Amino acid sequence: MSESEKHYDLVIIGGGPAGLTAAIYSARKGLKTLVIERGIPGGRMNDAPFIENYPGFPDGIKGSELAILFVKQTEKFGVEIHQMEEVVDLDFKSDPKVIVTRKGKYLASAVIIAIGAERKKLLIPGEKEFLGRGVSYCATCDGFFFKNRIVAVIGSGDEAAEDALLLANLASKVYLITNAKSLECEEVLKGKIRESGKIEVINNYKVTKVIGDEVVKAVQLKNIDTGEEKEIEVNGVFFALGAVPMTEIMRKAGIETHERGCIIVDNMQKTNIEGVFAAGDCTCNSLFQVITAAAQGAKAATSAYNYIRDLKKTKR
Amino acid sequence: MSESEKHYDLVIIGGGPAGLTAAIYSARKGLKTLVIERGIPGGRMNDAPFIENYPGFPDGIKGSELAILFVKQTEKFGVEIHQMEEVVDLDFKSDPKVIVTRKGKYLASAVIIAIGAERKKLLIPGEKEFLGRGVSYCATCDGFFFKNRIVAVIGSGDEAAEDALLLANLASKVYLITNAKSLECEEVLKGKIRESGKIEVINNYKVTKVIGDEVVKAVQLKNIDTGEEKEIEVNGVFFALGAVPMTEIMRKAGIETHERGCIIVDNMQKTNIEGVFAAGDCTCNSLFQVITAAAQGAKAATSAYNYIRDLKKTKR
Repeated sequence: MSESEKHYDLVIIGGGPAGLTAAIYSARKGLKTLVIERGIPGGRMNDAPFIENYPGFPDGIKGSELAILFVKQTEKFGVEIHQMEEVVDLDFKSDPKVIVTRKGKYLASAVIIAIGAERKKLLIPGEKEFLGRGVSYCATCDGFFFKNRIVAVIGSGDEAAEDALLLANLASKVYLITNAKSLECEEVLKGKIRESGKIEVINNYKVTKVIGDEVVKAVQLKNIDTGEEKEIEVNGVFFALGAVPMTEIMRKAGIETHERGCIIVDNMQKTNIEGVFAAGDCTCNSLFQVITAAAQGAKAATSAYNYIRDLKKTKR
Repeated sequence: MSESEKHYDLVIIGGGPAGLTAAIYSARKGLKTLVIERGIPGGRMNDAPFIENYPGFPDGIKGSELAILFVKQTEKFGVEIHQMEEVVDLDFKSDPKVIVTRKGKYLASAVIIAIGAERKKLLIPGEKEFLGRGVSYCATCDGFFFKNRIVAVIGSGDEAAEDALLLANLASKVYLITNAKSLECEEVLKGKIRESGKIEVINNYKVTKVIGDEVVKAVQLKNIDTGEEKEIEVNGVFFALGAVPMTEIMRKAGIETHERGCIIVDNMQKTNIEGVFAAGDCTCNSLFQVITAAAQGAKAATSAYNYIRDLKKTKR
């Protein structure tokens, strides 16, 4: 076995809250653990300007700072983290399992997939610039900041409708802006939106720009049929366009996914392949919250530990 | 409606990590939320000497300190916490649901049960008699009394190992007595126990009696295979045998439980009764970890919020 074919008990693909928590639990159970992260560890925590609902931080904490705390804790227990290293090939059916990156080849008795999901973005002017200063991709996370203020929700599906309803509990006024002729969400949600009294649905417009100075002041809209442009004054803009797990490579390796692209797991985070577990936003039962992703990581590590322990027993 | 019959959107019974996290999520979704805790908020965190695996605290944190952080965060979002208030009667079938305590009566559109689990007892001679005079179920609370003295820890899992390690910081000598062939805790803990130099592990014995006069003087042990009996002189005995949920009152109110006493929930924390959810150590899928209890609380709050949203619509 060459140096580039190191054998680990557990390889965790993805270094967000699920992957790092899995690593903490795994290392504390005595497993030799490697985390492979294609970017910087922390995952979507790094995109969260400020997290107020992760329990234990009453004053809130910057997502990037929380990420650093997770990483430190992981390293403390002897976990190896390879960052900026992309997985390009997998063999989950072989024994041990094989993980190939652009830099090397790793063997593992068990694998946890924690690759997260990407929020869909519109990539319009102002969207990136005002992230954390009025622009958000998570109503559950950030809605509370907009108590008694005016917000816009961008999207036409269930997620957008649910976000608008949640925000109507908090904000003084909610614009729900869709690029469709009408809302495309469930009928129940449509009814609730009509009843709320706080939500104004604006159909058939696309959002062309987020406008502001220090913080968001307005969104610019363009009528899809007439090209007419208008501005709406808002304090916050919530993009609710869905999230896509980048699970193509996992499907190729035989992992069962839902048509939405998410990985199907049982309640102990097992996938359809023995010894391969998944946790966090890449799974179908994600709530897209740090706390739930971390808990899934802890569960996945417990399952992986039990799997490896049983494996060793069988081999003897 | 009298003052003592205040109507809340959500009443959470129990103020441990699950209940407090549920409260954070609930209040941030705009629900009027009450937490009723029969003791001090924090739940079993208050019994945890030192927590090293709750992600976000790389240097570890005292359980009681983490509990305070959870409470502060809950209060920040306007949650009411009633402590030292015991629930004595419930009506989960009425609308709204009714929660009666020794101090008042509360109405709620939805309820989350997060009552945790109680320490398991051996119920051997001397165990009850010497409670507070050498017998303890909480090393954090009582360890300091045994500074430079000799103690025994009864149990074979992570909890017993962690207690033994804490007590080794204080006591002159720690016996860790297990009824198993070997310790069943995490490898990291086994290593630390070996390194401590103060902990003597005695496997394969059950404790049959706590012996003393004014205070504890010894424990009587019996070898599980040979029946051989012996006494070990100690000043304190710490029972670390896990926990059982005290769900009697919940069963009376119609909540379905497992034969182990834990509450049966689906993966969105729903119990068998509409609008009643459960989270944390009182549920059957608990891992007895702060991170997983907290995540269940977040999920339960999300489910309760969805339930209340749908309820309002039906009523109109």
